Amino acid sequence: MYLEKVTGPEDIKGFSAEQRRALAREMREAMLKRASIHGGHFGPDFGIVEATIALHTVFDSPKDKFVFDISHQAYPHKMLTGRKDAYLYEEHYDDVSGYTNPEESPHDMFNVGHTSTSISLATGLAKARDLKGDKENIIAIIGDGSMSGGEALEGLDTAGEMKSNLIIVFNDNDQSIAEVHGGMYKGFKELRDTNGKSERNLFKAMGLDYRFVADGNDAEAMIAALEEVKDIDHPVVLHIVTKKGKGYKFAEENKEEWHWHMPFDIETGEVTQPLIDPYAEQTAETFLRLAKEDKKFIAISAATPASMGLTQASREELGEHYIDVGIAEEQAVAMASGLAKNGAHPVFGDYSSFFQRTYDQLAQDVCVNNSPATFLVFWASMYGMNDVTHLGFYDIPMMSNIPNLVYLAPTSPEEYQAMLDWSVAQEKYPVAIRVPHMMVGSSNRPVRKSYDELNKYEVVRQGSQVALIGLGSFCNLAEDAAAKLKDQGIEATVINPLFITGLDEELLESLKENHDMVVTLEDGVLEGGFGEKIARFYGADRMKVLNFGLPKKFYDRYDYGKLAQEHHLTAEQIAEDIIKTL
Amino acid sequence: MYLEKVTGPEDIKGFSAEQRRALAREMREAMLKRASIHGGHFGPDFGIVEATIALHTVFDSPKDKFVFDISHQAYPHKMLTGRKDAYLYEEHYDDVSGYTNPEESPHDMFNVGHTSTSISLATGLAKARDLKGDKENIIAIIGDGSMSGGEALEGLDTAGEMKSNLIIVFNDNDQSIAEVHGGMYKGFKELRDTNGKSERNLFKAMGLDYRFVADGNDAEAMIAALEEVKDIDHPVVLHIVTKKGKGYKFAEENKEEWHWHMPFDIETGEVTQPLIDPYAEQTAETFLRLAKEDKKFIAISAATPASMGLTQASREELGEHYIDVGIAEEQAVAMASGLAKNGAHPVFGDYSSFFQRTYDQLAQDVCVNNSPATFLVFWASMYGMNDVTHLGFYDIPMMSNIPNLVYLAPTSPEEYQAMLDWSVAQEKYPVAIRVPHMMVGSSNRPVRKSYDELNKYEVVRQGSQVALIGLGSFCNLAEDAAAKLKDQGIEATVINPLFITGLDEELLESLKENHDMVVTLEDGVLEGGFGEKIARFYGADRMKVLNFGLPKKFYDRYDYGKLAQEHHLTAEQIAEDIIKTL
Repeated sequence: MYLEKVTGPEDIKGFSAEQRRALAREMREAMLKRASIHGGHFGPDFGIVEATIALHTVFDSPKDKFVFDISHQAYPHKMLTGRKDAYLYEEHYDDVSGYTNPEESPHDMFNVGHTSTSISLATGLAKARDLKGDKENIIAIIGDGSMSGGEALEGLDTAGEMKSNLIIVFNDNDQSIAEVHGGMYKGFKELRDTNGKSERNLFKAMGLDYRFVADGNDAEAMIAALEEVKDIDHPVVLHIVTKKGKGYKFAEENKEEWHWHMPFDIETGEVTQPLIDPYAEQTAETFLRLAKEDKKFIAISAATPASMGLTQASREELGEHYIDVGIAEEQAVAMASGLAKNGAHPVFGDYSSFFQRTYDQLAQDVCVNNSPATFLVFWASMYGMNDVTHLGFYDIPMMSNIPNLVYLAPTSPEEYQAMLDWSVAQEKYPVAIRVPHMMVGSSNRPVRKSYDELNKYEVVRQGSQVALIGLGSFCNLAEDAAAKLKDQGIEATVINPLFITGLDEELLESLKENHDMVVTLEDGVLEGGFGEKIARFYGADRMKVLNFGLPKKFYDRYDYGKLAQEHHLTAEQIAEDIIKTL
Repeated sequence: MYLEKVTGPEDIKGFSAEQRRALAREMREAMLKRASIHGGHFGPDFGIVEATIALHTVFDSPKDKFVFDISHQAYPHKMLTGRKDAYLYEEHYDDVSGYTNPEESPHDMFNVGHTSTSISLATGLAKARDLKGDKENIIAIIGDGSMSGGEALEGLDTAGEMKSNLIIVFNDNDQSIAEVHGGMYKGFKELRDTNGKSERNLFKAMGLDYRFVADGNDAEAMIAALEEVKDIDHPVVLHIVTKKGKGYKFAEENKEEWHWHMPFDIETGEVTQPLIDPYAEQTAETFLRLAKEDKKFIAISAATPASMGLTQASREELGEHYIDVGIAEEQAVAMASGLAKNGAHPVFGDYSSFFQRTYDQLAQDVCVNNSPATFLVFWASMYGMNDVTHLGFYDIPMMSNIPNLVYLAPTSPEEYQAMLDWSVAQEKYPVAIRVPHMMVGSSNRPVRKSYDELNKYEVVRQGSQVALIGLGSFCNLAEDAAAKLKDQGIEATVINPLFITGLDEELLESLKENHDMVVTLEDGVLEGGFGEKIARFYGADRMKVLNFGLPKKFYDRYDYGKLAQEHHLTAEQIAEDIIKTL
């Protein structure tokens, strides 16, 4: 047993090839057991075990600095840098985050979770080193999927002009989360097929030196290659070929499913607690129908088809009505604008956190041009991804303050369906839909067919004294809070605003007649959000306004229930706060 | 005289080579005269005259669709598509915008102004054409400077996998606004030097077909090359070499100065009304001092060094303390994070409108990691660029709602200096500074040395009844409005908040004692902005709140004075509104 004794990289530096092979086996065993119980990223980590052993054998971390792209492949790195317990012992599984984390270890340079950032961050580390007159190695480790992102390509371009040490380990397993997409992958394939000799070389075209390692799962070959580039005096790309999911049959065979995985049975590979987002499934079903009904329909993905419920089979069925642009959210949004301008009906869906990549494309390419494209924002909620790098509740301030955009907030599967059908068919507005989180079920609230009349809110229940405006996923919460108020003798009005991007001034004005307080509830941060617009509307009136939501902060691995409690986002607390303030 | 008779592209299709040469001369003459009187983009348009004549000779616009990148080089295109009068006759100079504009002509597909979008937009047009079963040519025209932007590179990657007509005219004049930067430019130079034969070919590496035209200023060679790619059944890059500023000596010799130009004397090339932003000059002076005092200081530009007042001479003087990453704002911001994490003191400055490219990098690369980098946001104001694609007043909703960021709003050159000096030296916070617009002069308000104590506002003048909070450039307006109120017998409090990203809750709380109204003034849109946070703070109180600023909208080529008047942003109107509402 080697892994149990590894307290830091220095413990493995003197290992023999045989010891390294044994260590790699132990690391995979530990990861397999942990993943089967705990879930998490899988394929990226299984593929990079030997490369990580080699990196820590050759380089001297933390003096030499590693930047792992996305850092979802950093489990082996964590095991070798003092955090083995979190992979060996179940009671310690939650001691570590799923990504690199400087609060855990000086061996981690950044909190990273979005793709395509490692080269850019590394160029900064390298330039700072030069300014200070230091000498360490700076190493970015980036997968082929991440290479399609604009930030990575911009980073390559800058690296190609730099003149000091910078090592880019390009980990090529011919796979993104789903299959890779883009013309550059033809070139990468040629490089793999020619042992790195092909002329079609993106890195050389970017002005960079280039080396090739045919088997990146051979620790000895990796060590030899890394020794050669260690202390190099200029930027270099080391292209290594690895196998995603290596060492676990099911993961090797089905790379997409095993990119990230829920807890599973090791023998069968079967998930023990399946995670199903009914809104994703509903989306995929809608797309399959639209592809048959509307020749102008097209679904766009930026390498996350699962966000829209699109399996490999459904993607094939969509055929010409589906395009994956790779991890390239800017391209996805701008392409959607081009599609819409030439008469197509494009829909781009992705997770809320990744829409952050597209502010300028939404504003300039789409909204300045008023291109009638549809954007589906998934997991835009406190409920869901709770890693600091994947928070899904910043989209309202980011998107809703862009002119011309119609940002809709459905409150149920039925309303989502109506909005999606309306949006794809209409040709007047750029529309985004904030898809409810997966626990938001059906309601018996009435559902409109058309949303052409902008900013017209829906009164769900007419009352007086207090009006609760419950946005999207929080409309149910507004109804629950109204029920609590009823117990206290207050018949509150409940409003489903539907539109995040505008005020129903007529309705808000009319509330002044027999209401003393307007309360907003939103599943997101308060700063720059929906509630503040209501507060401004009533600023000079005697109407009291209370805004419920989260204060802006980078929350990390929180418990949803506790976070809601802490910020008074339960029906009981809301009713109490209202009564206290009335 | 040919140009006077050109009502549309059909009028030039039958021209002889001689006629085309005469037309090109006339077009340059018209542009030269117009630029000398009116100002505008210069070099990009003078370089692309022949290529544009060739494009309109070979293709059938608007059936065939052109997408001009940035579209600051579209003057010749406009001249040939029914808008010659706007270039020939002074009284019509303002009939057209400085960019392509679908409201002017069906020959313009998009309102464009930001770089690197043309390929992405064109991939969308092409895919929509295929879905509809149409057959037209889709042509993107993009300069070499724009190629360094991530969106363009993502677009190339998607194009490299497409299988139908798409023509990318790559206009290589070896120049961005300033000199080009990045490793890809070594490859482009090799291609120019080898007549397109070099193996270092970014486009082939992206999976694309490739052709080369050595003299893109030869209309006949261009026509021949375009004829060959017309109706091609797959994406192709046509690499053409042109001369920026061609036909005007001063512009050929000093490409950076003549990228865009103020009105000038044609004989001497000298500017008749120089435009000087004193804040840019102050910034450059500070940088030159810092480069001497602090070895860890570094200024970063994304191809707009002039935003920070950096001339070619000052860039050379900065030496290792300056880096231009090309038109690659994401790289600039992420690199700044890497620099700060490794102990350097980076400052990245750009125009407000271009910061829109960096939302995710600010949030993830910088703020999640709390990297103490400094960002200077120039022309963040209603005053300045007034093209719909370059509006500088969306940065507050975009940036100020990102956690951890400290966004400062100086109100004078003295305060800007103090904030800049403090920010570069401190190592605790990511800091952005909203540089005042160029007309904001010195004030005698006290200036702090340190801003370590976050969200501590400054009371400029203690009064009662009404408190005016004047953010940044609008602090003077708050003082002016207070003076008007004084005439009416109201001694208003005036507050300089300094911090856009947080509330001074203690101060705001204390205002409740002897104030009935709090008024916010901000030089930007109201939605998601600063004032709404104040409105939320007082939501449940009897304090009246009035927010002054602009409603969100894509304003285009407005008159600053009229816009201010329309939205009650003069001291008189503000005072009146206050008295009316009290």
